[in-house]
Parts: sequence; structure tokens; C-alpha cells
Amino acid sequence: MSLIQPRTLKGFRDLMPEQALRRAEIVRTVEDVFRAHGYGPIDSPVLEYAEIIKGKTGGEANKELFEFVDKGGREVALRNDLTVPLARYVAQHEGKLVFPFRRYHIGLVFRGERPQRGRAREFLQCDADLIGPVGVAADAEALIVMADVYAALDVGAVTLRVNDRRILNGLLETIGAADQAVPVLRALDKREKLGDETVRGEMRAVGLDDPAIDRVLDACTPRDDDDATLTALEGLVGETGQGRAGIEGLRHVKRIFEAAGQRPEALRIDPSIARGLDYYTGIVVEAQLDDLPDIGSVGGGGRYDDLASLYTKSHMPGVGFTIGITRLMDALEALDREGATRCTTQAMVTFPGEEALTPAFAFAAALRRAGIASEIYPQPKKHGQQMRYADRRGIPFVFTRNDDGTFHGKRMADGETLTCPDASSAVSWIQSA
Amino acid sequence: MSLIQPRTLKGFRDLMPEQALRRAEIVRTVEDVFRAHGYGPIDSPVLEYAEIIKGKTGGEANKELFEFVDKGGREVALRNDLTVPLARYVAQHEGKLVFPFRRYHIGLVFRGERPQRGRAREFLQCDADLIGPVGVAADAEALIVMADVYAALDVGAVTLRVNDRRILNGLLETIGAADQAVPVLRALDKREKLGDETVRGEMRAVGLDDPAIDRVLDACTPRDDDDATLTALEGLVGETGQGRAGIEGLRHVKRIFEAAGQRPEALRIDPSIARGLDYYTGIVVEAQLDDLPDIGSVGGGGRYDDLASLYTKSHMPGVGFTIGITRLMDALEALDREGATRCTTQAMVTFPGEEALTPAFAFAAALRRAGIASEIYPQPKKHGQQMRYADRRGIPFVFTRNDDGTFHGKRMADGETLTCPDASSAVSWIQSA
Repeated sequence: MSLIQPRTLKGFRDLMPEQALRRAEIVRTVEDVFRAHGYGPIDSPVLEYAEIIKGKTGGEANKELFEFVDKGGREVALRNDLTVPLARYVAQHEGKLVFPFRRYHIGLVFRGERPQRGRAREFLQCDADLIGPVGVAADAEALIVMADVYAALDVGAVTLRVNDRRILNGLLETIGAADQAVPVLRALDKREKLGDETVRGEMRAVGLDDPAIDRVLDACTPRDDDDATLTALEGLVGETGQGRAGIEGLRHVKRIFEAAGQRPEALRIDPSIARGLDYYTGIVVEAQLDDLPDIGSVGGGGRYDDLASLYTKSHMPGVGFTIGITRLMDALEALDREGATRCTTQAMVTFPGEEALTPAFAFAAALRRAGIASEIYPQPKKHGQQMRYADRRGIPFVFTRNDDGTFHGKRMADGETLTCPDASSAVSWIQSA
Repeated sequence: MSLIQPRTLKGFRDLMPEQALRRAEIVRTVEDVFRAHGYGPIDSPVLEYAEIIKGKTGGEANKELFEFVDKGGREVALRNDLTVPLARYVAQHEGKLVFPFRRYHIGLVFRGERPQRGRAREFLQCDADLIGPVGVAADAEALIVMADVYAALDVGAVTLRVNDRRILNGLLETIGAADQAVPVLRALDKREKLGDETVRGEMRAVGLDDPAIDRVLDACTPRDDDDATLTALEGLVGETGQGRAGIEGLRHVKRIFEAAGQRPEALRIDPSIARGLDYYTGIVVEAQLDDLPDIGSVGGGGRYDDLASLYTKSHMPGVGFTIGITRLMDALEALDREGATRCTTQAMVTFPGEEALTPAFAFAAALRRAGIASEIYPQPKKHGQQMRYADRRGIPFVFTRNDDGTFHGKRMADGETLTCPDASSAVSWIQSA
């Protein structure tokens, strides 16, 4: 019989055991922080009616959808984010949910085609949202949860670059260009890539004059420190209106952030942050690792006005953010901090011969009851081969049963040995290491 | 604009927050036990080449597949189990994996059509396998890990009903009916449902005579205790051959199981256990809750001869098992043991007014640093509404900031109150509760 070539689809990948373990550890840490702040999990199907999945994003993005007709004739699609499913979920179960509703959702999403080097077509999305409230308390909370997540992950210092969409909108109102908000934002989004001259050209094309353009570019340039940035913005947007509300909001959020024990430097007011064009309506944030700025954003989010307007007449404002699990895996690998989770087994018992399996299993079980993850080498192989296995796996302690019933222990890091008359002496040795 | 009806596909369902939390807790507990025994996670895509997914199961089962042609013209399918992906994974990454290879995999699988009441078309599969070794050490390990999983889940006592496929195969050899193994197994599989007479008829139809049928049915009937069962089997299968090896294996596995500190009653030799027709070749096991036998099997597995023969010439025997996450969720709900995980928030701070957000956030952050999951009610609502929210969510402690800067604490269960001058007094109070 000819063999089937074992392979995965382009853009889909297996995780090797150490990668899967690292990701599982990140997920668990993130979940613990979410829960410490009152966020609970939800779950929803990866496959939904295509009508639901396509509802919001419309034409262009659909090229990226995995969609098909199922055997019951239904038009279905694999979800391409967790926001649309959240909107559908909240509308569908509105009466059963308790608001304000804090939820997190960690699940697979799928984005096909648009071949791009190394772009994953299946990845683990991790979102948290607080739905219902409007105001600085909810906005500040989102930033504090994000900061706590990164602090718990041991990825070094993180900077949250924070802006408020109302500031630019207010400025455009002030200069009589409120209707040009979308093209202006679109132009600004390319500023870093294309430079000021191109951006100016685009703004002129939609009718802004040069003084207005100067004012916009000036407003979108961060100063040396947050006070200077906010003061400059105040001068540009005037005393009232939504721009002023945005600035006041940022000031207040910053005070709350610091009062909650966060490092003041971890929050940076950066009026160049936009995060996409249409979705966000208030505060926006992007997270960046101080030690690895080139890896790009490791998370972000913001405030939106109305989550579920496609599915319900109930008005549902909220604030939410994404934690970039895949980027964080890359970061932990780059920072070489993955060593700790290479292997969860702390002790191996070598194969004791068929006739002595019972005392060996009893020994391993006793280690396990003391909290020491333990495995038995499960087949009769040469001692050297068993030790090579332990070494390749990175298991720190190996125990071999002696004929007199004691166990010979070896610490793999330095070769130190100890004869253990029983499991409890092995436990003490391991715990003191 | 007309609204889109928010709904999920038939057979697909959302998890409400308390269900998702319960499932997340089960998954975490199961993972902890797996890791304590040296099993590490892997991950693989939910979408694969249809050729891979269909490789093993062939014609009939494909009706249940979600398969389609993707936008790149590839024939793809959502996986319908984690065993085929494991086989593909092990063959594909053979050179990078360390054998013996212990892995667990918790992931979504999809099975469409065949409408059946309440049958889920998407569910979370949870498998653990030990690939490489053949023998009682590996077999016993599988049972011990399973028993540890159920013990950690607080679902009451569990019985592992254990058999060895070699026993019936050996008996069929002894009576000269080795070639009839598949139809005989198929008939036996229906014994509980259809009764002995129907089963006898089917066996006669494939050429077994009545004394042979008596012997087979006798061999597949558990006795009052394991010793009696094994002794009876010894009389039926003879002194040598695979049947005898199966019996000796079960005796040894039972001794190891008990030596590892497991309750002897938790393992029951049951020669009626078959677990499907073709896959398993040695020990087989099904797990049943003593307090909820009607809920059906909450897990099971067994030994197989060659995992990945479709994808590689390497011979890969192993032993593996499934933990029935969904059934265990149902069980915990039926046993009313879900209360503990209803809400992870331990303390809520009521909305203190815009002007006092900073001390309230500082207070909540201090509780959190002491390990107490805390949330702030994030918007200005009437006090009564905030208390109703805490009550509906099941939050045990609520703190309200007084004008003098102290916090008024209320224990929701009994209404006891305490004035806390600072967070540390609140922490002591909560921890002493």
C-alpha cells in the first residue's frame, strides 16, 4: 500500500510539544489575569452561518473567508475574528447575561488567501471586552488589565501607546473638516510608511488647506512627555467639544492607571495611534515590548460605540482589547525565556524490569503526591538509552531502583547522585535543589 | 436597516459564561494531571487535506465530514477526531520527537449530519497517548493517569472497566474461529441492547456451533469479582497463546494499579468491554461514574498496534485514551458541584463617583495583589442596581468607599458588614471567611 504524504495545509501549522507547552502557559497566565479582574470565559462555534460572519465586514474582506455550503445546504463560514461572534452572542443571549458584561474569549480564527510570507491562516485569538459602561473607569480598567497581563508574562517592560479618537475628530470639527475624518485617518495611517509629503498630498486632495494640514500633523505628533503632548493638544482642539473630552479622559485614565500601582512609564500618550478606521470611537491603545519593539504590536484595542447593532436594537457600547498570543510566543522565544517550560516532568524512574514494576510505580506515585511530576520509562531498554531520553527531554532528576529496594538518584545538571531509601528522601532532595 | 437574526448552526452551540468557566476548569485540571505524569501538549490545525482526514475511516464515515474545496482549489476537511491528526503528526515530525512520546491534545473536532437528538457537531476532544512502548508498564500507566484525572475532578468514585482484546481473539483461535473475529465482535457489541438470542443467531450465521457460542458468551460475562472472572477466562482460553497473555497482562496491570496507590475497586475486569471493532489490539478500558452510571462512558481507550501506518513505514504501537469533557461537564452539573466555579470574582468595589476613582482602583489593585480577584463596578448607577449585579453574579464580598476614605464591606451570603480602613483589613476579613 502506498503511503499518504503527511503534510499540513499552507498557512496552517503544527505546534511541536515545546511550542504547545509555551502557548498553553501563556494562555493560562493570561486567563489568570483576566479572572483576577472579573473577566470570565465564553465560547462559541468556529463555524457559523456565513451571513453572520460576513455581516459586518462586507465585500473586500470576504476574500479571506473560508466559506462553503455544508451537506445540509447551509452557507457557512469559519469565523475570521472573535468580535463578530461576540456581537452575535451578546445579541442572542442578551436576556441571560449580566451587564456590565466582562468576558474573555480565547479561540481559533481563520483567514485565508492573500498569500503573505509566514502569515498564519489559523491562529489563536485572545480578546477581552467590558460591555455596557461608558467612561474613564472602564477605559482605565482595560489598560490596567493589559498591563497586568504583560507583567505576568515575563516579557520585560511594556509600553501602552494610548490615544483617544475623539481628539482628532474634535480637531477636524474645529477646522471644519469633520466630514473628511475617514480619508484623513486613512492618510495618517500611512504616515510612518510613506512620509509627511505623501500624507499632505492626500489631505490636500480631500480639500484641507495647508494650515489645517499643519495643525492635524502637529496634533498627531507625540511630544517628549505626556504633559507636553496633552498641553499641545489642548491648544489645538480648543476648550470644548469631543476633542477636549478626549484629552480630559486621557488625563484621568493616566491618574487611575498610576493609582492602581502601574508603572507611570508604562503608559505613553501617543496621538499617532489610530488602530484602523471605523470601529473605534474613543480611547485606543497599542502595546509594544520595550526590549523587542521590532516584533510589532503585542496587543491593542479600544472603545467602541455600539457592538451588536447588526443583530439587536439594544445599544451596547464597550471597551475591549486583544492580546497577541502568537507574537508573545515569538517574543518569549526571542528573549530565550522559554527554558523554564521546556519539560514539565521533574523526575523519571528508569524501567525497573517487569518483576519490579510495582515498587517503581509506587515510588513515582509517591513523588507525584508530593507535587513532583514524574514519569516511568515505560519499556525495557538499555540504561544508556533511557538516560539519553531523559537528557533529550530535559528531565532534571532520574531515579533507578537498586536490587535492595532503594533508589539511586541522579541530578542531570551536575551529575550529583544520592541513594534514596524511600520516596520521601527523594522528595526532600528534589525540593532542596 | 433590518437586523440579522443572531443564531448558531444546528448542532453547534455557545457556552454561557458559567458553562465555559466549568469547562475551562475541567480542562485545566485534566492538563495538570497529564503533566504530572509526563504528558505534554501538542497542537495541530482543525483544517487539513481531506485525503489525510479520510485516510483511515474510508467510505461510510465520510458522510459525517465537513469537507469542501478551499479558494486555492484544495480539497480540505475539518478533522473529526484527534487520532488521525496524531498519526499524521507523528509521521511528519518523527525525527524531531523524542520517543517514547507522551502527548495530550485538547482540541475541537467536527462531525456533521446524521441528525441525532442533542448530538453536538462541534465538540472538544481530549486525548492522551503514549507512543512507542508495548507492555504492561504502558498499559498500567494509562489506567493510572485516567484514575488520577477523575479523582482530581471531584465527580465521585469512578470505575474503570478493563478488558484485553487478546482474550477473545485467543478464545476464537482455540475454537477454530479466528477468522470470524470481526462478525463475532460485531454481534457481541449488540448483546446488551438486543439480548443473547439475537447474538446467538448472528454467530450461528457466521458458522459457530452452539458449544462455541456458549463458550464465547461465557467468556464475555463478568463474574462477581476479578479473581473469579480471570480464573474463568483461564479455563476458557487455555494455557498458552494470546488469550493467556491477555489474562496475565490484566493480572499484572491490576497489581501495578494498586501499587500506585489507586483504590482496588476502581478497576474492574469486565470481559464484555470491546470498544469498537478494528482499532484496538490489547487492553481496552471504559470509565464510568459510580454515582451517575446512566450518563454513560466518561472516557475510554486502549492499546493499538500501529498508529501511523498510512503515513510512515515506522512501526508505532501505543496506548491512549479519551477523557469525555462534555460528559464530565454534564456530570458536574448533575452532581451540583458547579457552584464553586460560578464566579471567579471574590470582591467588587462599587462605583465611587468619578472624583474618587483613583482610591477605588488603588483599593481593588491592593486586593488583587493579595490574590483576591476583584472588579470595580465600572459606571455610575444606583447603589441598589450595583448590589443586584453583585448578587446575580454571585460575588461574595462588596466594598463601598465612604466619604472618610474607609471602605464599607458587605459579605453577601449573610449580610455581615465591616468597616475597613485599608485594603489589608479587607484582605484579612475575606481570607478568614
